[in-house]
Amino acid sequence: MTKDSESGFGEALGRRAQQVETLLRQLLHNRPLSGEIDRPERLMAAMRHGVLNGGKRLRPFLLIETAALLAPKQDESAALRAAAALECVHCYSLIHDDLPAMDNDDLRRGQPTVHRAFDEATAILAGDALLTLAFAILADDEMDLPAERRTALILELARASGVGGMVGGQMLDLAGEGTLPGESEIIRTQAMKTGALIRFACEAGAITAGAGQEERERMAEFGSAIGLAFQLADDLLDLTADAATLGKSPGKDAAAGKATLAALHGEEWTRRQLGGLIEQAHALLEPFGDRAGLLRAAASFVATRDN
Amino acid sequence: MTKDSESGFGEALGRRAQQVETLLRQLLHNRPLSGEIDRPERLMAAMRHGVLNGGKRLRPFLLIETAALLAPKQDESAALRAAAALECVHCYSLIHDDLPAMDNDDLRRGQPTVHRAFDEATAILAGDALLTLAFAILADDEMDLPAERRTALILELARASGVGGMVGGQMLDLAGEGTLPGESEIIRTQAMKTGALIRFACEAGAITAGAGQEERERMAEFGSAIGLAFQLADDLLDLTADAATLGKSPGKDAAAGKATLAALHGEEWTRRQLGGLIEQAHALLEPFGDRAGLLRAAASFVATRDN
Repeated sequence: MTKDSESGFGEALGRRAQQVETLLRQLLHNRPLSGEIDRPERLMAAMRHGVLNGGKRLRPFLLIETAALLAPKQDESAALRAAAALECVHCYSLIHDDLPAMDNDDLRRGQPTVHRAFDEATAILAGDALLTLAFAILADDEMDLPAERRTALILELARASGVGGMVGGQMLDLAGEGTLPGESEIIRTQAMKTGALIRFACEAGAITAGAGQEERERMAEFGSAIGLAFQLADDLLDLTADAATLGKSPGKDAAAGKATLAALHGEEWTRRQLGGLIEQAHALLEPFGDRAGLLRAAASFVATRDN
Repeated sequence: MTKDSESGFGEALGRRAQQVETLLRQLLHNRPLSGEIDRPERLMAAMRHGVLNGGKRLRPFLLIETAALLAPKQDESAALRAAAALECVHCYSLIHDDLPAMDNDDLRRGQPTVHRAFDEATAILAGDALLTLAFAILADDEMDLPAERRTALILELARASGVGGMVGGQMLDLAGEGTLPGESEIIRTQAMKTGALIRFACEAGAITAGAGQEERERMAEFGSAIGLAFQLADDLLDLTADAATLGKSPGKDAAAGKATLAALHGEEWTRRQLGGLIEQAHALLEPFGDRAGLLRAAASFVATRDN
């Protein structure tokens, strides 16, 4: 990737992040909606703390840009809302993952985690409420899509984030600590814990765009490739980066007794794999030609990021 | 209520509970569905532990019988699935409510709570997975309803169980411990924590049946009345029953410093209120005549139950 396309991508990512941040802020207001009785202030504050934290919003970016690629003339508001719902799920999973009974983290993006800034019960409930809110956003009539596409988004999000996806992956990840899982267990755990939601981001863009089955599967595959690249790059950073670059302590996986593919096969193998995944992701975008420039850049970004 | 109609109701409730239990058991299998990667065994076992526990399945009963009343010729499978989804949400809330950081309960229906039978992390994840599964059930094509009704069910369930409903009520309930909230705070907390989901049960029956706005609102109101009755009866039991009848320790609310309407106004006032709520609920069923016998009996049961 040239410096030029890198900076173009960085700007595009930042612009989308801002749009998503604005919408999330709107959605996380204190005023109860129809069908709601009240929105307790402390709980709303905890939800905002866990969501409005300056994240890169990579998953929303993938969803929105996939939808824009496949239905360039469609109004973007539905894709933005779907992206906000997806981000609520991602952030809820971080809140619960940080809990003392789980990873027991005090800091997230340099800020106190939700259970540190508030308390454990509030963090549990804030996570629950964000997960629930995600489905409310997708089912709401303000989501300007035919009901069939809304139910498709809801079903795929639930499958990707539930027992057969993200939550199941968190479970396998916890079970794997301190033991030495084999390569296939590591791959499965990561495909579930981080891969499923990134795959969903791309597939959801296609669903939002009203794409046919073939394009939907193609974009889901694209999502799987960069989901795996995302994880490998993460493992590599944990293995090689210094704390100053990373912004958090490296070597955390090894300290927690977590096996990773990068640790198993070493740096060189991992970089080779990452190269192959970028190629695979780019090949899947071939049919779209130049119009897929941002998604191509996203694949490269995911695989080569240094923090 | 005569002894005859009581036993008729008890049988009907038990029959529905069995149907719902059977469906829940089917839904909580270990085999991953399309869009799922794997279903980790330990997590599935924890989910089953939290759900298949011999509950009365009152909320499912209300949903199914409301649907049967308003669309007697409609196939019951959609109502059963919606009822199973609702029960997943109810059970997830109990699992999280029992956690050490929340109510810290060791027993639920005479069995170890999920975090006792498994561990805390598994209980958090099992709750998350059940909540997610509820939305997957409602969005699934096996749910034989037009997509518009499915999104309506999903939206109302999310609103009733999220920050503006059940989860918000749990938050207010925790915040209220040890302080002395006023009457209006108690009413709001209970309407959110337990009322919203019982109200949803009845409204969801109407949505499933494809009822018009007027009937939908009527049944939601019916649900609100018996939701409040349910809570008052609960508070009354906590105030007056002995442990043997109750199957759990009475006086728990007072010990936890929780204010209840029953404690505030006494037994006599509470029984009068309960009588009024039964009347109100029965009046809402008036238009349906004899066909509403089971729902009428349900209202009486909720208000007069002794455990």
